[in-house]
Amino acid sequence: MIFPEIDTPAVLVDLDIAEANIDRFQGHCVDHGLAVRPHIKTHKLPILAQRQLQAGAIGITCQKVSEAEAMIAEGGIDDVLITFNIFGDTKLARLRDLSEKVQLSVVADNTEIVDGLSQFFADAPQPLGVLVECDTGASRCGVTTPKHARDLARYISAKPGLSFLGLMTYPPVGQEAAVQEWLTQAKTEIEKIGLTVSVVSNGGSPGMWQAQDVPIATEYRIGTYIYNDRSLQARGVCTWADCALSVLATVISVPAMDRAVIDAGSKVLTSDLLGLEGHGHVIGRPDILVEGLSEEHGVLKAHKINLKVGERIRIIPNHACVVTNMVDQVETIRGDRARGAVTVSARGKVQ
Amino acid sequence: MIFPEIDTPAVLVDLDIAEANIDRFQGHCVDHGLAVRPHIKTHKLPILAQRQLQAGAIGITCQKVSEAEAMIAEGGIDDVLITFNIFGDTKLARLRDLSEKVQLSVVADNTEIVDGLSQFFADAPQPLGVLVECDTGASRCGVTTPKHARDLARYISAKPGLSFLGLMTYPPVGQEAAVQEWLTQAKTEIEKIGLTVSVVSNGGSPGMWQAQDVPIATEYRIGTYIYNDRSLQARGVCTWADCALSVLATVISVPAMDRAVIDAGSKVLTSDLLGLEGHGHVIGRPDILVEGLSEEHGVLKAHKINLKVGERIRIIPNHACVVTNMVDQVETIRGDRARGAVTVSARGKVQ
Repeated sequence: MIFPEIDTPAVLVDLDIAEANIDRFQGHCVDHGLAVRPHIKTHKLPILAQRQLQAGAIGITCQKVSEAEAMIAEGGIDDVLITFNIFGDTKLARLRDLSEKVQLSVVADNTEIVDGLSQFFADAPQPLGVLVECDTGASRCGVTTPKHARDLARYISAKPGLSFLGLMTYPPVGQEAAVQEWLTQAKTEIEKIGLTVSVVSNGGSPGMWQAQDVPIATEYRIGTYIYNDRSLQARGVCTWADCALSVLATVISVPAMDRAVIDAGSKVLTSDLLGLEGHGHVIGRPDILVEGLSEEHGVLKAHKINLKVGERIRIIPNHACVVTNMVDQVETIRGDRARGAVTVSARGKVQ
Repeated sequence: MIFPEIDTPAVLVDLDIAEANIDRFQGHCVDHGLAVRPHIKTHKLPILAQRQLQAGAIGITCQKVSEAEAMIAEGGIDDVLITFNIFGDTKLARLRDLSEKVQLSVVADNTEIVDGLSQFFADAPQPLGVLVECDTGASRCGVTTPKHARDLARYISAKPGLSFLGLMTYPPVGQEAAVQEWLTQAKTEIEKIGLTVSVVSNGGSPGMWQAQDVPIATEYRIGTYIYNDRSLQARGVCTWADCALSVLATVISVPAMDRAVIDAGSKVLTSDLLGLEGHGHVIGRPDILVEGLSEEHGVLKAHKINLKVGERIRIIPNHACVVTNMVDQVETIRGDRARGAVTVSARGKVQ
């Protein structure tokens, strides 16, 4: 039985693989003169953020104020970018507190957000750095034209307590040339009005090996790369051997020759498909389809399932970042040796 | 602004609606002579389990040992059925401990599971009640024929420390006649070998109003009915007014006339689709499609989105049971009055 000391289902993190993933991408970015600012959403573990910083990262990225609070609580992290429009007095008061503990910057894509930031930072000892979030094609948040980026940069720079820092984008996948052009136009427009664009923040694991194809970027935000997952393997971004996160599960029923049921369902693996068929890759058994998930059951199908009740399997999930968020603790391993449970400090920090 | 004292995103539970849902289905089952054994997976809150018992439920259903442990910790719950094949020494030892605190029963669909149960209960002061899980068409766990059910019933009844209690099924939706026939055949086969089938446990919220169409059942297990959700509304099982759980979210960006972005993504609403288009129903705005979820962003689309940054909306999710499990606390409300946060005691209890 694999990992007999660990009860199932459990989320395993192979630290050897994670560390190699950190170092490989850090090296890639050093080669191309890009700073790395890892997104902690994938691991939510201070120990791995610290390891990313030791490897040369300039700081971390968080999505929510509460994530940042949880990540810095254990120390060793002193530079945080929150890539989210922060709104509302409760969050802004906490953001202000956070700014007194770390070097903090945020993003904004509209004037209402900027107004709120300014209100809470007008009397701060040093201005809050604000990046303009740019929609370069992904159609989520972001100003939609370079001229809008310029206008918002001007608005920020005129606001008490704020300092315009640069541009940030969550880019569309595989559109590096278009992203480069968009950001270059925005930078040019902004420089025309006398402002300095100190930071251009690009990111995304799917495009990680093409990071250098947006040369205007000064830094790259990246999350999933530390663990990798089935979606990145399917895109050719990594191999199975580069996947650091897996779900350890036990076969609890083999009702038919072609079907087995495991004790991990959507409350561990989640329902994220990311365009894939099935809910994960069973290590060593590419013939198995993780066909269906109930909340606590996973149904495996294969021409001959050839599994026994009590047998354990490991599944590389479609999407590592959401699996991390399902459990209070992950079990660290190195190869086939268990190295102890670690609390997922920023799990469930959605505010 | 709605619920200004609650930060977003938040999971709201309207206790008035939840209590009405409990009482309505309890009344339905009383009318049809069926016992109710609510599945706590949907709420994971001891206070609501206690309310279900006060309404007349005979006990609760859990899926995992750790869920049961969390649910009974606050007291007031003394009868638990775990509808899951329990395997492995760690879980079996905890199951044995649990049996000393509450009236406990479990299920099994194969001899390996039964052997493990017997090993840990052979010297127990009273035998553990075991139901044979039957696959009446849902193709998850369960013995696949009535004769297999009989054979496993005989196997259980001969094992030290165990007592054969009856049959349990997680049925296919809308197949009441077939389920009735399957269970009747199994009961007949089992009675032929001199065993008594004391309990026949059926369940499922989608078929709740047809519970009486499987008259062989003695009890009905039901989870989602307490909150309801978009999937049950789509099936005609409930109305929007019967939906007790909603996600409170804030609009953080309105980048285009037809698009807005909220601060709730898949780490609150989850990616469960259950066959539906979009990720939830925006209360009062049926024209809005919750088109896409990133981990912390939700993208709303409408012909005219007509929302402002800072505005709050409430979303009824596709699947209430998984949303409960994303947050440490839910915010209870009654109508438009906030009634305080409650810890989701059994959240993340997957083992």
